Amino acid sequence: MAVREVKFGILGCAGIARKLTRAIALSPNSTVIAVGSRSEEKAAKFARENGLPESVKLYGSYDGVLEDPEVDAVYVPLPTSLHWKWVRIAAGKKKHVLLEKPVALNAQEFDEILEACESNGVQIMDGTMWMHHPRTAQMKDFLLDTARFGQLKSVHSVFTFPLPKQLLETDIRTKPDLDALGALGDQGWYCIGSILWAADYSLPKSVLAIRDAALLNPAGVIMACSASLHWENGNTATFHCSFFASLAMDLSVVGTAGSLHLHDFIIPFEESKASYSTSANAGFKDLGTGWDPCPSEHVVFTELPQEVVMVSEFARLVGNVKSGGCGPEKKWAVLSRKTQLVIDAVKSSVEKGYEAVEVVE
Amino acid sequence: MAVREVKFGILGCAGIARKLTRAIALSPNSTVIAVGSRSEEKAAKFARENGLPESVKLYGSYDGVLEDPEVDAVYVPLPTSLHWKWVRIAAGKKKHVLLEKPVALNAQEFDEILEACESNGVQIMDGTMWMHHPRTAQMKDFLLDTARFGQLKSVHSVFTFPLPKQLLETDIRTKPDLDALGALGDQGWYCIGSILWAADYSLPKSVLAIRDAALLNPAGVIMACSASLHWENGNTATFHCSFFASLAMDLSVVGTAGSLHLHDFIIPFEESKASYSTSANAGFKDLGTGWDPCPSEHVVFTELPQEVVMVSEFARLVGNVKSGGCGPEKKWAVLSRKTQLVIDAVKSSVEKGYEAVEVVE
Repeated sequence: MAVREVKFGILGCAGIARKLTRAIALSPNSTVIAVGSRSEEKAAKFARENGLPESVKLYGSYDGVLEDPEVDAVYVPLPTSLHWKWVRIAAGKKKHVLLEKPVALNAQEFDEILEACESNGVQIMDGTMWMHHPRTAQMKDFLLDTARFGQLKSVHSVFTFPLPKQLLETDIRTKPDLDALGALGDQGWYCIGSILWAADYSLPKSVLAIRDAALLNPAGVIMACSASLHWENGNTATFHCSFFASLAMDLSVVGTAGSLHLHDFIIPFEESKASYSTSANAGFKDLGTGWDPCPSEHVVFTELPQEVVMVSEFARLVGNVKSGGCGPEKKWAVLSRKTQLVIDAVKSSVEKGYEAVEVVE
Repeated sequence: MAVREVKFGILGCAGIARKLTRAIALSPNSTVIAVGSRSEEKAAKFARENGLPESVKLYGSYDGVLEDPEVDAVYVPLPTSLHWKWVRIAAGKKKHVLLEKPVALNAQEFDEILEACESNGVQIMDGTMWMHHPRTAQMKDFLLDTARFGQLKSVHSVFTFPLPKQLLETDIRTKPDLDALGALGDQGWYCIGSILWAADYSLPKSVLAIRDAALLNPAGVIMACSASLHWENGNTATFHCSFFASLAMDLSVVGTAGSLHLHDFIIPFEESKASYSTSANAGFKDLGTGWDPCPSEHVVFTELPQEVVMVSEFARLVGNVKSGGCGPEKKWAVLSRKTQLVIDAVKSSVEKGYEAVEVVE
């Protein structure tokens, strides 16, 4: 069976759309056939700068892309506050949706997005790239290995990078009417997602934003925050995100028998390979002069960048739906929704002055 | 000037005393001349098993060592609850004291210990070995480099290892009348010490034990806990310690320009070399396909194990006092005391049901 090619339209020319345009081009089962922006001029500039062929269709509105019968799927990198509106319209036009994170301003909005996708039979997946890196699957194997890792006890996740001072006032991630979730939606999405991933998507029973660690801008948008997550079984996790610190992305997962560490879980240091470190059944040498055994470093070489694997996976699922073989795959939306639920709870904890907030599914 | 040799007496035959006996032997300016235990038989067994010469004096009591006029200094690995009594007696006998951590059950006890040392003019230093590893000084240089690290923003520190199930009831670290500080005193000492080290020993204004993350044994001793620390300037730190998780010791320090990471800060994986990773002024490559620059790995080769450097430093300070050149060096006791103050505050936060507790100097 020939690989079915999924024809993409791009909704909006955000910076991240450049990366996805390249990923769609590199993906063996997808191609960009249309770009829509608020002006046709912007769409043309984007197409030119991103090496799209002359044949690509340029639209001066998002509607143009969504009305195009040739477009199978749209990639939506719009500000979070616009997701609810445009994804529902796209689904109504039977377009499959690859949606940038955070998926919505809150879980209720996302539920309405999912309802629209479900009733229209379209595939939805969020754009969390690291989930698709082959390293992630290997690391999961380690976490599931009861002999080497044992049972999960705690997770710590960090994602920080500095927004340049001038952007702290102008970036969409600082605007309550655009990306109202700020650093929590942008960076915390990954931290929370990695914690849930390590916990096999078991939801914490409660979250607690760490007292005095949240920084809000004058418009009330979270620019930095930390929180702890608590499970019924006593497991705990902490995370930290900030627009005021240097680039760091740490994931540490500690179990009863072993632990996992890496410092580039969202975007690997290098595109062609990625590593992680595991420690299993370690103790000390006699007299505590060293570890026995020492941790192991694992290197995973990649044929395709993680975002290309992600696009391929999305296009594969879209292809399945289009070929009539099966309905949309729902697992990705389930993971997105759980991440959003925890984001909502952390935001609520900050708003309530660092009270504990139950996570209600 | 010939190196003055400091003559050590060992008070008690705890497991850790084996490591220190080797360290004293390897240190160019110190030697073990006496061992005291609750029975002379135990002292003899310890001397035999640790390769001490026939000439070593064996005492069936701690008093025997402290009365010995040849003993310059004592190493005290006794359970924490005995520190207050025996260090004060030792100081009264003009013995210099190398004291295992945690230094006392609380800061008030430690202040009385310090008073005794001061009024008797003896040197006191705690046995936190990693502070003396040459790697630690190198890492400090990085943290002080405003071009590469910038200003401190956050720290995360972890120390966990599993106490075997049978020890959870019998180990001295689980007994309220022996090491009443449990995991907080044993493991948390290092976490808190590393955080204070990264913060240049600026004390947090408050600490908050993380809700539901503390586990107490039936006797009320902390077996696991986490806490957040908060500074006036908005800096935050978190730490986690546990007797129920696998061996892990992480230190992550994030600044405005760079970050520092290592996973063996207390006991390096290997005795002869130790490494750490730094990231400085990192951003993403175009299209976010990797980091630019990637972090650097630094390897520090060691001539002497860190505990030998520690003993040498202690013996050097004792030598200074004995030669009459100067009084005892107080900086180490200041660091110990700050660490103890934060331990006290975290313990109090747990006891108060996870209330925030001010750290009062």
